[in-house]
Amino acid sequence: MQSADAKFKRNSLFLTLRRYSSAVSEMEQTILLPSLLRDMPSDEVWDCEAAEETCKDLYGNYLMLKAIRTTVESGLIPLDDHKAKNNTALNKTLEPLLDTDPEVLFHFHVRGLFSVMSDLTKKTQTLTEKYMDIIGVAN
Amino acid sequence: MQSADAKFKRNSLFLTLRRYSSAVSEMEQTILLPSLLRDMPSDEVWDCEAAEETCKDLYGNYLMLKAIRTTVESGLIPLDDHKAKNNTALNKTLEPLLDTDPEVLFHFHVRGLFSVMSDLTKKTQTLTEKYMDIIGVAN
Repeated sequence: MQSADAKFKRNSLFLTLRRYSSAVSEMEQTILLPSLLRDMPSDEVWDCEAAEETCKDLYGNYLMLKAIRTTVESGLIPLDDHKAKNNTALNKTLEPLLDTDPEVLFHFHVRGLFSVMSDLTKKTQTLTEKYMDIIGVAN
Repeated sequence: MQSADAKFKRNSLFLTLRRYSSAVSEMEQTILLPSLLRDMPSDEVWDCEAAEETCKDLYGNYLMLKAIRTTVESGLIPLDDHKAKNNTALNKTLEPLLDTDPEVLFHFHVRGLFSVMSDLTKKTQTLTEKYMDIIGVAN
């Protein structure tokens, strides 16, 4: 099993997840006063209509990025009404595709995960930079 | 970084991928004469219309499960015309959802990956059992 572990360590999906995890750690170490992010408008057009109000400011983004990191590291998806509801909508759209070749579905989800993790890593780095701007520290 | 590695090792997504990898290794060790699977009809209703002819028999399934294991272990998605085409169809369906909350997209793909990996692990075990039946070895 050791050799399989070694293979997984070099796995680029594994590295993509770890890169995100590191970006969030760096964000946490930099943002010593997260409350400064409250009420700062977020440029990101995140569909937060069904979510808590906090999602609309940078502080909401900060909390969301931290929550995703916890899930990435544990690999456990929490059962949450809001997210479950949104997933149901997504799953409904995909329903006719569920009978598809499992190989295609596998590639689809791995590609999707790569894409969303890269996106989230960039968002984490951008948020860290914005905090530096707020406190007046040059990057 | 060691502590992050340790966390990832206990990660249940990581374990799900490793479980699949182990099931395929067991299949390979059991199926000493894969050619016996040729022309054996597959019960699985896999959408192989666009794929190679071999996908329709158990031998085709055997090759597919091995190919997916390689991708799972390397974490690299090969650029392949056939799969790319199928992914385009899937991506087209998802297009209106791409603007959605990245947290929701992340959960959607992780859940999808869990689901397809469990499915593929079961298929691998079933194929191994079918081979045992073919060579007349009781499980």
